[in-house]
Amino acid sequence: MTFTADNYIYKGPFNVAHIAQQTGCEISGSSDFEIKNLAPLDVAGEGDLSFFDNSKYLEQFISCKATACIAHPKFIDKAPNGMVLLTCAEPYAAYAKAAQMFYRSKDEVAGISAKADIHPTAKIGADCSIGAFTSIGENVVIGAGSVIGRNVSIRSAQIGANCVIHDGVRIGQEGFGFAMGASGHVKVPQLGGVVIGDNVEIGANSCVDRGSGPNTSIDSGTKIDNLVQIAHNVEIGKNCVITAQCGIAGSTKIGDFVVIGGKAGIAGHLKIGSGARIAANSGLMRDVPAGSSVGGYPAVEIKDWHRATVLINKMVKGRKYDDN
Amino acid sequence: MTFTADNYIYKGPFNVAHIAQQTGCEISGSSDFEIKNLAPLDVAGEGDLSFFDNSKYLEQFISCKATACIAHPKFIDKAPNGMVLLTCAEPYAAYAKAAQMFYRSKDEVAGISAKADIHPTAKIGADCSIGAFTSIGENVVIGAGSVIGRNVSIRSAQIGANCVIHDGVRIGQEGFGFAMGASGHVKVPQLGGVVIGDNVEIGANSCVDRGSGPNTSIDSGTKIDNLVQIAHNVEIGKNCVITAQCGIAGSTKIGDFVVIGGKAGIAGHLKIGSGARIAANSGLMRDVPAGSSVGGYPAVEIKDWHRATVLINKMVKGRKYDDN
Amino acid sequence: MTFTADNYIYKGPFNVAHIAQQTGCEISGSSDFEIKNLAPLDVAGEGDLSFFDNSKYLEQFISCKATACIAHPKFIDKAPNGMVLLTCAEPYAAYAKAAQMFYRSKDEVAGISAKADIHPTAKIGADCSIGAFTSIGENVVIGAGSVIGRNVSIRSAQIGANCVIHDGVRIGQEGFGFAMGASGHVKVPQLGGVVIGDNVEIGANSCVDRGSGPNTSIDSGTKIDNLVQIAHNVEIGKNCVITAQCGIAGSTKIGDFVVIGGKAGIAGHLKIGSGARIAANSGLMRDVPAGSSVGGYPAVEIKDWHRATVLINKMVKGRKYDDN
Repeated sequence: MTFTADNYIYKGPFNVAHIAQQTGCEISGSSDFEIKNLAPLDVAGEGDLSFFDNSKYLEQFISCKATACIAHPKFIDKAPNGMVLLTCAEPYAAYAKAAQMFYRSKDEVAGISAKADIHPTAKIGADCSIGAFTSIGENVVIGAGSVIGRNVSIRSAQIGANCVIHDGVRIGQEGFGFAMGASGHVKVPQLGGVVIGDNVEIGANSCVDRGSGPNTSIDSGTKIDNLVQIAHNVEIGKNCVITAQCGIAGSTKIGDFVVIGGKAGIAGHLKIGSGARIAANSGLMRDVPAGSSVGGYPAVEIKDWHRATVLINKMVKGRKYDDN
Repeated sequence: MTFTADNYIYKGPFNVAHIAQQTGCEISGSSDFEIKNLAPLDVAGEGDLSFFDNSKYLEQFISCKATACIAHPKFIDKAPNGMVLLTCAEPYAAYAKAAQMFYRSKDEVAGISAKADIHPTAKIGADCSIGAFTSIGENVVIGAGSVIGRNVSIRSAQIGANCVIHDGVRIGQEGFGFAMGASGHVKVPQLGGVVIGDNVEIGANSCVDRGSGPNTSIDSGTKIDNLVQIAHNVEIGKNCVITAQCGIAGSTKIGDFVVIGGKAGIAGHLKIGSGARIAANSGLMRDVPAGSSVGGYPAVEIKDWHRATVLINKMVKGRKYDDN
Repeated sequence: MTFTADNYIYKGPFNVAHIAQQTGCEISGSSDFEIKNLAPLDVAGEGDLSFFDNSKYLEQFISCKATACIAHPKFIDKAPNGMVLLTCAEPYAAYAKAAQMFYRSKDEVAGISAKADIHPTAKIGADCSIGAFTSIGENVVIGAGSVIGRNVSIRSAQIGANCVIHDGVRIGQEGFGFAMGASGHVKVPQLGGVVIGDNVEIGANSCVDRGSGPNTSIDSGTKIDNLVQIAHNVEIGKNCVITAQCGIAGSTKIGDFVVIGGKAGIAGHLKIGSGARIAANSGLMRDVPAGSSVGGYPAVEIKDWHRATVLINKMVKGRKYDDN
């Protein structure tokens, strides 16, 4: 396997000592080698840096031919002879940093496309990139170093620095607000905006509606995948991870470091405490305390959901439920 | 909190008597005051109009400093001294109308972007707006006063008057029709179109496929949220509300005033009667009678779904199911 | 009902003998008639070809006025007097082929829009069409005869021949890869690409992320509906059918001829064997053996899911579960 690395700028090579310093790793072995590229355990060879984080791949690690490998220090004894080991407590994060040393996305340096449509009142920070066929509306603010993809539309929004907004994202359109009535539904003007912090990433074709009066907000460091719906007045804290096709209904407030699995649906006006974890495909209809894990539809404490699954399965298999 | 009101044209101020007349409210107090703006209960002050519709916020209402407030007449006795009360049976609808008096979306008066791609055979009604990077195909008809967003694509469709089609919507592409076979799948030409009534709203990045022979249709007054999928030959009645990320499979027929919660999935070839309500996250596999409420996966009558949830929860907690 | 047939080129008429030959049907009756158009059973008349595949519509078939009709040979005795019957084992596939004889999409011959943005290094095959406001990135390869819609963005991808990529599709953006940590999440460069075979169709606003190192791949003949999410490193085999709003998480491998119902969510790192069928709205968390059918959340063998539904329904209705 060869990495395509298409649309990236290669910035290597680097010697082992420099990589260790930049990624916060300890070196076990010689620090003199030059590393030319990255490769997975099973195909890496001379001049390559690999990484080992999942003990499922221990066999591959033991026979790996890479010049150097990032791993947890507990695996030092398993490393093949001659391999330089770069050890740290979070090997995947160290690998991510090393990969960033070697490869920089061309999108980050592409600049502003002549085929984008940018309103003269919009304020675009230094070193931003904006793709073709993207609309940036009146009074929009985009912080320095942010990368806005192609076919994006942004209105009524302030976006922080170093954000990545992928292709086809919609930010700041009117929220879904109607006064429902027996003779039809009356539209409620959506007078709030969208406020997005720094280092936020929003995946392709996701939507973030403007607030109905208050703002919709996404705080710094939060990462959102593709095809996600963020409704009006939702508040999302720092460093959350929201996986593809999730939907968060209006006015729900989400704390920091919340992790939401793919396709989860979260009802409106809920509070999800910091550090909560919500299983993929869940349907959430109640508040979730900080630090807890939930799953199922309707979502319950994750152990109870797994118990219910086991119990129903036993019943279906013809065993009495009180055998449980 | 200050409303951003970005992308809106401010049309106030108005005096209380005029607002009451336009919104169908009775005045309790003086009608001479001038109202300059809208504000929520907790921050409203002199010159502001607020509204009170959810008794959860009674404390805020009692101490509210707004010059005037829209509320149900049953709350007249609770209103603070000096507040002008505008009373009616549907306060949220009255507030929506008042908000429309004060604010008009600039999108409604933006006109047709020079960066849109409109086929010469398309018929665009008076006072339409069409955003940048939007494609309007051959023979498409769009009624007067409709607002089409940015990055939209429309083909093989007739759209009524005063519709709002948000950014990134796809209307009229071929439906998903294949004759499946052991040697591969043969594409079936999709020869129908899309017919959309008046006052329909379709949210960002939603998709409405053209029919396979018959048309796909959405009748007047129906409101559709973001990232919704409407498959070929689906017929949706008047004044339905379809929340974000719902999917309606091919040939299903939906009556009038049906309300569908977020992320519900509805199988193909079903009939959903008028006035039905479908809970968020449901998976619907059967017809639904008019006026009934369903939820769950597979969806059942809503009370049965809630009973099943309670029952499973009790079993998981170790209590015998027949304690129920 | 008249078919709109908008955006199609009419290529008829054809005589019955020619249609039979092209669709692999036997003729029962005269082969001399000329067929001018296609129509459903209930409205077809002189000069029309209809088709009958679902015994639910037997009454319509018996009284149908079409000049000719495609049907399974077992219905020869039921055909009305004077109707020419074209018989074969797979009538819907034969109808699809006949419809393709009569109608060809104008998109197939539209050519490359002057309003598309195509990188000079991209290689576009012969007879491709590319719509307005579509971006084709550096080094992208598109095979002969492929049709790319409007507002599409494609990067880091190789696409085969005769593919159809509908409006708003996103291919090749960075996958959702972060090393999560207590001080924030570190982005992992996504160095793989996307490889798509021949005769693949991808529906409106769907997303296919580039791989993280390995490629994301979709093999020939696979058909994907609207608003589908294909995450990084997913591998999909030949001739699969993936219905709207499905989501397939990272690194999952799917065999050939797998059929996935609408809105199903499939977890990452799973193996779905060839010929498997996954029910609509399912949440899949385990591997699925070849040829098996699964449904539910979490998904189980389809019969067990149906049994669980029946069993829970009985319990809710107050009957003892061991009455089952």
